[in-house]
Amino acid sequence: MKNISILGATGSIGTQTLDVIRHDSESFKLLAISAYRNFEKIIEIINEFKPELVVMIDESAYNKVLEYCKENNITTEVKLGYEALNEVATYNETDIVVTSVVGMIGLIPTLKAIESGKDIALANKETLVVAGEIVTKEAEKYGVNILPVDSEHGAIFQCLQGNKYEDINKILLTASGGPFRGKNFDELNNVTLSDALNHPKWNMGKKITIDSATLMNKGLEVIEAHWLFKVNYEKIQVLVHPQSIVHSMVQYKDGSVIAQLGPTDMRLPIQYALNYPVRKEAIATPIDFFSIPNLHFEKPDMETFKCLKFAYEAGKSGGIMPAVLNSANEYAVDLFLNSKIKFTKIQELIEDALNHFENVNNINAHTIINKSNEVTEYLKGKNIF
Amino acid sequence: MKNISILGATGSIGTQTLDVIRHDSESFKLLAISAYRNFEKIIEIINEFKPELVVMIDESAYNKVLEYCKENNITTEVKLGYEALNEVATYNETDIVVTSVVGMIGLIPTLKAIESGKDIALANKETLVVAGEIVTKEAEKYGVNILPVDSEHGAIFQCLQGNKYEDINKILLTASGGPFRGKNFDELNNVTLSDALNHPKWNMGKKITIDSATLMNKGLEVIEAHWLFKVNYEKIQVLVHPQSIVHSMVQYKDGSVIAQLGPTDMRLPIQYALNYPVRKEAIATPIDFFSIPNLHFEKPDMETFKCLKFAYEAGKSGGIMPAVLNSANEYAVDLFLNSKIKFTKIQELIEDALNHFENVNNINAHTIINKSNEVTEYLKGKNIF
Repeated sequence: MKNISILGATGSIGTQTLDVIRHDSESFKLLAISAYRNFEKIIEIINEFKPELVVMIDESAYNKVLEYCKENNITTEVKLGYEALNEVATYNETDIVVTSVVGMIGLIPTLKAIESGKDIALANKETLVVAGEIVTKEAEKYGVNILPVDSEHGAIFQCLQGNKYEDINKILLTASGGPFRGKNFDELNNVTLSDALNHPKWNMGKKITIDSATLMNKGLEVIEAHWLFKVNYEKIQVLVHPQSIVHSMVQYKDGSVIAQLGPTDMRLPIQYALNYPVRKEAIATPIDFFSIPNLHFEKPDMETFKCLKFAYEAGKSGGIMPAVLNSANEYAVDLFLNSKIKFTKIQELIEDALNHFENVNNINAHTIINKSNEVTEYLKGKNIF
Repeated sequence: MKNISILGATGSIGTQTLDVIRHDSESFKLLAISAYRNFEKIIEIINEFKPELVVMIDESAYNKVLEYCKENNITTEVKLGYEALNEVATYNETDIVVTSVVGMIGLIPTLKAIESGKDIALANKETLVVAGEIVTKEAEKYGVNILPVDSEHGAIFQCLQGNKYEDINKILLTASGGPFRGKNFDELNNVTLSDALNHPKWNMGKKITIDSATLMNKGLEVIEAHWLFKVNYEKIQVLVHPQSIVHSMVQYKDGSVIAQLGPTDMRLPIQYALNYPVRKEAIATPIDFFSIPNLHFEKPDMETFKCLKFAYEAGKSGGIMPAVLNSANEYAVDLFLNSKIKFTKIQELIEDALNHFENVNNINAHTIINKSNEVTEYLKGKNIF
């Protein structure tokens, strides 16, 4: 029996994690969860899974959950606010913390979880992007596993089983190419929010869906792969693979390539991470190789989709630059989701921030958070509307 | 340093094994080799690698090699005949015996090698087909590794690293489909020997090239996979994959698929087997994913290419039936290679033999050899020309 706590229980990954737990209640118990403001879903989760601790970020949602528990004599403890996320992250006998919040607000709770010896099922890629060195060093220090939950790093992790990281010649990180694959810059200039939210292969949260459309998602994954698998950026190659059946590959130094393939169902990598190193019976429907389309691979267009290029550059620069990249992206995507800017403005704002800020080495969690706030303030000050 | 001996050093796999040894003379030393009658190649090998023992099957070739060694004061010992293959298989400090002879004549030397504690790099699939239970039991008893050398089982073996055999849901054994993929029975009736020898993807020995054209090669591989990876026949699915880039896959019980991909260069699986569990620098040119064709998979046509169906049936029957299948096939392919029968007669003769002979359980190496001879005698007596 593994005890699971989830940061971000009502989002896409959180919901699918609960489905994995639901399918295998003999193996998993849900202890503590958090959500931003979706109190209706939280109340459903409380009724079904009876967690011991719930944290809400939004005050009115918190009050609704609290009231519900009181009225129904439910013993679940309910707490309010960002600080309380750390309590979810370090809760009692938790074995694995699933970090499925969006954005770098996942950083501090993830570090707290590591310090208290919890394994991390990492879906919150921004954490590794802004603080990869810190997080991986802490994980080593406290002897905890960082188990990647997204489909690509989960695939790479599987391809590395029984192999040595130092034998990696290349990580072949696949990308669907998103909804705008093949478009040129002028065409990109005219896409709408609903075009961007219409991902061809994956049904995901809004922020990651926009990141997929700009290819920033793949850029963040490049940086994540660098830290998770200890490989230089020169050894990470993005392959656009529109069928999204090969979830990533590793080419070893002898030229042999190991690939992981599967349905486009996030429950599979979640299930693998939570059960690691054991494999359990399938929840997701396996691939039928006789009915899939032909598989192909092409080069990403980094001149049109500049976010991917920016991510490689920020990653190679290291220091504070990945945090600048990420913060500018979080801010710009938020503006785009609120229909304040057009699609191509996202990469323009990121480029602006990357040019404006000088690199800083010797970073820690607090310099990262401070710099991220600076980036947001800088972009706010630009009167871009 | 690993000491290598090779049964069948002048054939396709033998020659490529020597190339792997040539590229890494710090890791490998060649001790003992055998060949049928290609004395010119054997003399080249003696000059380059200076093996301690050479066995020739053909007497006039043996005399030529012996004479050459005497004249040139070469200390290599030269021996004659099938019995002496056992000396190659068990030679002194040999660590790995590469069994790259063609046909079931590999059986006894392979068993002798196992009994003397040598690891087996197995390219001689007929041995596992006719005596899979005996060979795998002996290997367990003497604690030796059976390292598959062909591209498919080598791929499956790589896909299984870091995983458990009992978690296999399906082995997805890929097949190029051979030169006659898509043809119907009438078209097959008219193909020539040179058509059949013209394999679209692999450059191999003649017997295996014909087996690839009939799909018997894949059938033998199905039986081989059954024994190597301890899976039921229901869990072995053949996928026709004409691009020959995915060399096979394993679908695990959670629905995840691990695949091995590589160039169509046998030196890669040979190198992997000889170095296992270590990976060495590439000899073969790795895949460039941006220049390969689209990958696709289709069902094999077992109604036209009946050899594959016969192999499944013989494998499921067990006992002596795989030996009957194999012996009929060895005989029929030999006739076809000598232009004595047409292509479709191969499967007809195999079907005849499978219908004629009753199954026998409780087999040993000698009953297998005797029955195989009976099958040949039976088919010879049929006056098929």
